[in-house]
Amino acid sequence: MSEVLILSEDQLRERVGLDEALIGVIESAFASLAEGGVVMPPILSMHMPDINGELDVKTAYVPGLDGFAVKISPGFFDNPSLGLPSTSGLMVVLSTRTGRVQAVLLDNGYLTDLRTAAAGGVAARHLSRPDSRRATIMGSGLQARMQLQALRLVRPISEVTIWARDGAKARALCAELGDEMLSARCSEDPAEAVTGADIIVTTTPAHHPILRAEWLRPGQHVTAMGSDQSGKNELDPHCLDHADLYVADRASQTRLLGELRAALELGLIAADADIPELGQIIAGHHPGRTSPEQITIADLTGTGVQDTAIATHALAAFSKEP
Amino acid sequence: MSEVLILSEDQLRERVGLDEALIGVIESAFASLAEGGVVMPPILSMHMPDINGELDVKTAYVPGLDGFAVKISPGFFDNPSLGLPSTSGLMVVLSTRTGRVQAVLLDNGYLTDLRTAAAGGVAARHLSRPDSRRATIMGSGLQARMQLQALRLVRPISEVTIWARDGAKARALCAELGDEMLSARCSEDPAEAVTGADIIVTTTPAHHPILRAEWLRPGQHVTAMGSDQSGKNELDPHCLDHADLYVADRASQTRLLGELRAALELGLIAADADIPELGQIIAGHHPGRTSPEQITIADLTGTGVQDTAIATHALAAFSKEP
Repeated sequence: MSEVLILSEDQLRERVGLDEALIGVIESAFASLAEGGVVMPPILSMHMPDINGELDVKTAYVPGLDGFAVKISPGFFDNPSLGLPSTSGLMVVLSTRTGRVQAVLLDNGYLTDLRTAAAGGVAARHLSRPDSRRATIMGSGLQARMQLQALRLVRPISEVTIWARDGAKARALCAELGDEMLSARCSEDPAEAVTGADIIVTTTPAHHPILRAEWLRPGQHVTAMGSDQSGKNELDPHCLDHADLYVADRASQTRLLGELRAALELGLIAADADIPELGQIIAGHHPGRTSPEQITIADLTGTGVQDTAIATHALAAFSKEP
Repeated sequence: MSEVLILSEDQLRERVGLDEALIGVIESAFASLAEGGVVMPPILSMHMPDINGELDVKTAYVPGLDGFAVKISPGFFDNPSLGLPSTSGLMVVLSTRTGRVQAVLLDNGYLTDLRTAAAGGVAARHLSRPDSRRATIMGSGLQARMQLQALRLVRPISEVTIWARDGAKARALCAELGDEMLSARCSEDPAEAVTGADIIVTTTPAHHPILRAEWLRPGQHVTAMGSDQSGKNELDPHCLDHADLYVADRASQTRLLGELRAALELGLIAADADIPELGQIIAGHHPGRTSPEQITIADLTGTGVQDTAIATHALAAFSKEP
């Protein structure tokens, strides 16, 4: 019908997964953001309150790649009552040579889940202590599972604690997670859940903080990946003040959509503060963590450059076809 | 592979064309903009100067329709040297019930060409004198042809004059246009070309005005449809001042991308002026032209609501399939 490659979610699931190669791809994508030349426009966001739906469109151009992705991510929050997931969507890959459509990846959000989890792995690799063994995951959804999986690719995680607002879901997740390399437990008390952790990952759609500053201990790394809209907030804004290092995936986004927003509103961080980005640390432009005692925070809102990177990575998996 | 309907440009060309039904669809889309409930976020625009490319993404939600479109429009201006058109792209149609992808219309910009031309027809129907017989088209590209075709659907056009910067192209277009119902001529002098016109349509990517205010005559209607970016400008800004009525497709867009931008910069129109929109006239909220002597201007920058409307219209043509 045309030269456009159309790939289904099943095809993508068969060949693209959360592995070390993907962590490397997403790491390079963040580094390219720090190296200049990348063009990443503000997210197009459309809210449709009368149908309880929203739409985000992200894109980024990375010089040197054959293609760039435009990702269309709808969120329709009445879907669970229809037996459907809230989020879905696709990615379109266009040629950087001609702008022609090369591929349509009908992934229903699968590639977004992967690149989001991989970013958690990249943040942990560059900000947590290398000997981090104990992880605490706040939340019990798909990203709770996937963030843990990403952590295990970059750090010697041997214990995980799960806390979730819904205790039954936390227990169910816990029962599913343990294996011979990992002991899993759940906790009903969030303060207790995070106390012994080396790495804490918040994976919830919370609109009110679930992690308090006074619970943080020296040496911990926190990745907050749940907030991707201006109404969401997982960290007590004082966490940012309390931490030795706060790192954004993209400062222009975390100012509006991430944990930085609330801290700015309260004046805990100066409006003109120079906010380090993950890519600057990867590229060696910022030292990152400088001692094992420091408390570090990574704030991940999701960037178009991750979408372009994973879409290119996925297409490469199919171009190797005989 | 999935329940997503994938349609090629050839399939779309076979069933969707520039006809009265489409004019009605685009007219309704503009009316819905005036009726409220429509959500149309600002255009996502990405400029990639090192590869002489750009990308626009438009969308709009129209209450009551089954779906909404996200349109991805790349422009790669070195393509002609590769034997390819500069513009291409596709539309993705998502369900307003679940947000799931319903269809991918691999139209390479064909539907955009149609809905752009149809908007010219709608503007002429609501702003030009009903007895308009003489059209002048400035420009010699695809929209020059299509805008004329749209005018002929709504007004008794019997004479057309073509002016283009490239005289040879104007002559070639002219030779192609005449038929028993239409006499076509071309002119090398733009002032002369527009003097006798009832309707003038500018269809160029000009960055400097091609139509001067002092050439305008009472009773004329002008549609400027070439400018869709902040650097473009087809009308001498004094045209807006000189006209009795200036109408935007969407004022928030023409302030930034259309002919209004230059007039605002020169202070010819007050920054807080209340700018009428085409949809308000269609919906009867604004009187539009009130006498045959008035000079009217329609400024069309292209709106997401047109994309959602034509995508829905195109899908309907395929759902009638046996």
